Amino acid sequence: MSQANTSLPQGEPLTSADALEERLRSIGAARYHNLHPFHELLHGGKLTKGQVQAWALNRYYYQSSIPIKDAVVLSRFRDRRTRIEWRHRIEDHDGDVGSEGGIERWLQLTTGLGLDPAYVESTQGILPATRFAVDAYVNFVGRQSPLEAIASSLTELFAPTIHEQRIAGMLKHYDFINPTVMTYFQRRLEQAPRDANFALDYVRSHATTPEAREVVCQALAFKTEVLWVQLDALYHAYVSGFTPPGAFRPEEV
Amino acid sequence: MSQANTSLPQGEPLTSADALEERLRSIGAARYHNLHPFHELLHGGKLTKGQVQAWALNRYYYQSSIPIKDAVVLSRFRDRRTRIEWRHRIEDHDGDVGSEGGIERWLQLTTGLGLDPAYVESTQGILPATRFAVDAYVNFVGRQSPLEAIASSLTELFAPTIHEQRIAGMLKHYDFINPTVMTYFQRRLEQAPRDANFALDYVRSHATTPEAREVVCQALAFKTEVLWVQLDALYHAYVSGFTPPGAFRPEEV
Repeated sequence: MSQANTSLPQGEPLTSADALEERLRSIGAARYHNLHPFHELLHGGKLTKGQVQAWALNRYYYQSSIPIKDAVVLSRFRDRRTRIEWRHRIEDHDGDVGSEGGIERWLQLTTGLGLDPAYVESTQGILPATRFAVDAYVNFVGRQSPLEAIASSLTELFAPTIHEQRIAGMLKHYDFINPTVMTYFQRRLEQAPRDANFALDYVRSHATTPEAREVVCQALAFKTEVLWVQLDALYHAYVSGFTPPGAFRPEEV
Repeated sequence: MSQANTSLPQGEPLTSADALEERLRSIGAARYHNLHPFHELLHGGKLTKGQVQAWALNRYYYQSSIPIKDAVVLSRFRDRRTRIEWRHRIEDHDGDVGSEGGIERWLQLTTGLGLDPAYVESTQGILPATRFAVDAYVNFVGRQSPLEAIASSLTELFAPTIHEQRIAGMLKHYDFINPTVMTYFQRRLEQAPRDANFALDYVRSHATTPEAREVVCQALAFKTEVLWVQLDALYHAYVSGFTPPGAFRPEEV
């Protein structure tokens, strides 16, 4: 048996683009982090403000690494058109001089939750598991094939549903959440589908053998693991209460 | 505030090699994974055979990545003597034609626990957090300075105590453990101190400024996080019971 990169068992040979898309959607249905118990608690109003702070603080490391990840993806393509298409993702997150991007919107959320932006930006208090998972994503897109680099973004196919649940659930349940601090998710409702459609079309047309389609599925499974691990770590540290040495402790801020 | 790589707060300026060594030992005393609740359970006989299987299965990914990590460390040195010194670590783990190394001894442990070696070697069932943490270690020694690459091995300073506890505790408490399957740890009792002494001497003599000594401490803290994250993930998945999609489930083997 060869060494695996993910926990996804190899499936039946995927003989068409439609079979690929079907399998991708089934991976999302089984492994996307909307199914994670931490999200149930978050969206259902079951967390304390400190636990929501921990989530937003850790997730900042993910958010702020996305344009770095996308720059690495962009760097993999000799094809100018793919680079041009991919470039707007960096802009979406970084914004521009005088216009905010996704990272600033995320800082509005953490600031709205009462966290010092300098502390958040320092990433000092995040869980090591967050750092390892996010860094694994950045490394993945640099080391695997360009096809896999694009395929690993396909979790965006499943993002709009979770963002809608999150906006509605958090506004309803938490008195420390208002529409302004949820702007990040509101904007992603427009951005994610465009990005996801491009990536889906790309893998449908560029993965032309069963082996290449299998690799695309493994890349998506890898990405679901990147997301899932972050929530496992939050749950263990801030719901089960096993906060590791050096990590953020809500009462200390 | 600049971006941190670990959760270790910067300490007082380290003005001597002795001050460095004292701080390194205090980091070990506060953060080494002998303090982790999972190890208390493991060494105290509180785990089921399935939970011990999960530990040994996941730890195999760490063990089998160590010679890869050490090859990367070796590759960072133009200095032939450092390469020669470091090379025996690869040999310790890989063995040679006709003589076993640490990885084979670890497979004796997993086989003794009833796991199929082909399944263990495939790494299919490990926790994604294990993979991300271990891969972070391999990447760290390739990307940070050669000094940090060596410093990150300093957890071996604290290994003999935990190995003694483990050998005694596991032999005493588990009827599925016998001295043969514990050979790995027995051998490490001889190997680790030699390695740790070299690395300690190295950082004491090569980190000659307070800044360089601080970087050495951060590298050790990083490594304690690599180890701690693996046990957090095991605890969450197999003690708290939140086994992630696709990971090993004891009853299925």
